[in-house]
Amino acid sequence: MQRTALIVAGGSGTRMGVGIPKQFLPLSGKPVLVHTVKVFLGLPQMDAIALVLPEAHFDRWNQVAKAHLSPDEISKIHLSAGGTTRTESVEAGLETLSKLVENPAFAMVAIHDGVRPLVQPEVVEQSYELAAKVGAAVVCVPVKASLRKNTEFGSHGIDRSQYWEVQTPQTFRLGPILNCYRRRPEQVFTDDASLYEETGGKVAICPGSYENMKLTTPEDMLIAEQILKSR
Amino acid sequence: MQRTALIVAGGSGTRMGVGIPKQFLPLSGKPVLVHTVKVFLGLPQMDAIALVLPEAHFDRWNQVAKAHLSPDEISKIHLSAGGTTRTESVEAGLETLSKLVENPAFAMVAIHDGVRPLVQPEVVEQSYELAAKVGAAVVCVPVKASLRKNTEFGSHGIDRSQYWEVQTPQTFRLGPILNCYRRRPEQVFTDDASLYEETGGKVAICPGSYENMKLTTPEDMLIAEQILKSR
Repeated sequence: MQRTALIVAGGSGTRMGVGIPKQFLPLSGKPVLVHTVKVFLGLPQMDAIALVLPEAHFDRWNQVAKAHLSPDEISKIHLSAGGTTRTESVEAGLETLSKLVENPAFAMVAIHDGVRPLVQPEVVEQSYELAAKVGAAVVCVPVKASLRKNTEFGSHGIDRSQYWEVQTPQTFRLGPILNCYRRRPEQVFTDDASLYEETGGKVAICPGSYENMKLTTPEDMLIAEQILKSR
Repeated sequence: MQRTALIVAGGSGTRMGVGIPKQFLPLSGKPVLVHTVKVFLGLPQMDAIALVLPEAHFDRWNQVAKAHLSPDEISKIHLSAGGTTRTESVEAGLETLSKLVENPAFAMVAIHDGVRPLVQPEVVEQSYELAAKVGAAVVCVPVKASLRKNTEFGSHGIDRSQYWEVQTPQTFRLGPILNCYRRRPEQVFTDDASLYEETGGKVAICPGSYENMKLTTPEDMLIAEQILKSR
């Protein structure tokens, strides 16, 4: 079974308050996106990676790649131009991958946020294994906060023990998830697995780690540096 | 209607990795707990504040109070010794307050985490107003993350638009919430409102702000400094 990854890095990073898009900000001496890509390149099996970026960032990526990756590593990475929404960006990456594998029905894809560089390789590995068995696997962590649900009849506390906070990677068989995206649903889905299960697909929860944070604010960068130092 | 507040600061703060309990760490030149207490002291009406601390921290608090608060402010603050659990600590504070008000049935209490110094006065004010109408009000923010629920039949994505993340203050009529705590339920409740609604009480959601964060890690302190600077 071929194994692929789709790394989505479409953000312009304006919330960081600096000119550099957040996926290119330095983290322990390397751009965030290099950390992320290296996790996938370092797995025991990785046949192709689609990296979805705004076209305006292609040059920047090529420079970064030359500086931090080997020619062999670079050869596995295929750039796709991102769309205006995450849905369009993911679909673009899936289309790219579908042309690279022998048969999409027998390939796996892990869809991962470019700004989650701290994901642990063993968690990614587990998500591939679970998705191969179940059809789809989403890396999640238990919800930490107390939750309350608001309905037309009022609010009530929620037993949070059944609730999980969704991260990435979200891992699927490539063919079925590509079909979901090609159907271009009008409804907005906040993650890939919710779209997938609308078609009846089963989704397994792959327990991950709180360290796999999404880097959004300048403070997140500081926390990420601390986590890397502590490893 | 008398208005009281119960500030719970029972933590030993070991996760901060320093010798000082986190509620006493300096934030923009003042201990965290002083910021928190000052929000409540600054409201248009505040009749009494129960401050629940481990008894070992009473001396430290008295020094801090002398340095940062006026005698008039100090006179409104009543120390209670915290228990080994949050439930015990809240109950101790409620008992203290019940002896300070004319009639607990006609007094309000806002129960608030000592390590949430960034709560906005207008949010606290709204929680008192909502609780006076409905019986109880919990300050919450919309859940940001995608959620997934795990059941014996598998997992499924959740429409997060109905879900709120619980913060504090959680505001009640003093008499009813004290009765809830006196019944000492065996079940563990992760927040005061969940305990309250077990007795049939109605709970309103009071929309708050993401800035009202709970300071738990050293990085949280940095974020809090940034938020204070930006105000």
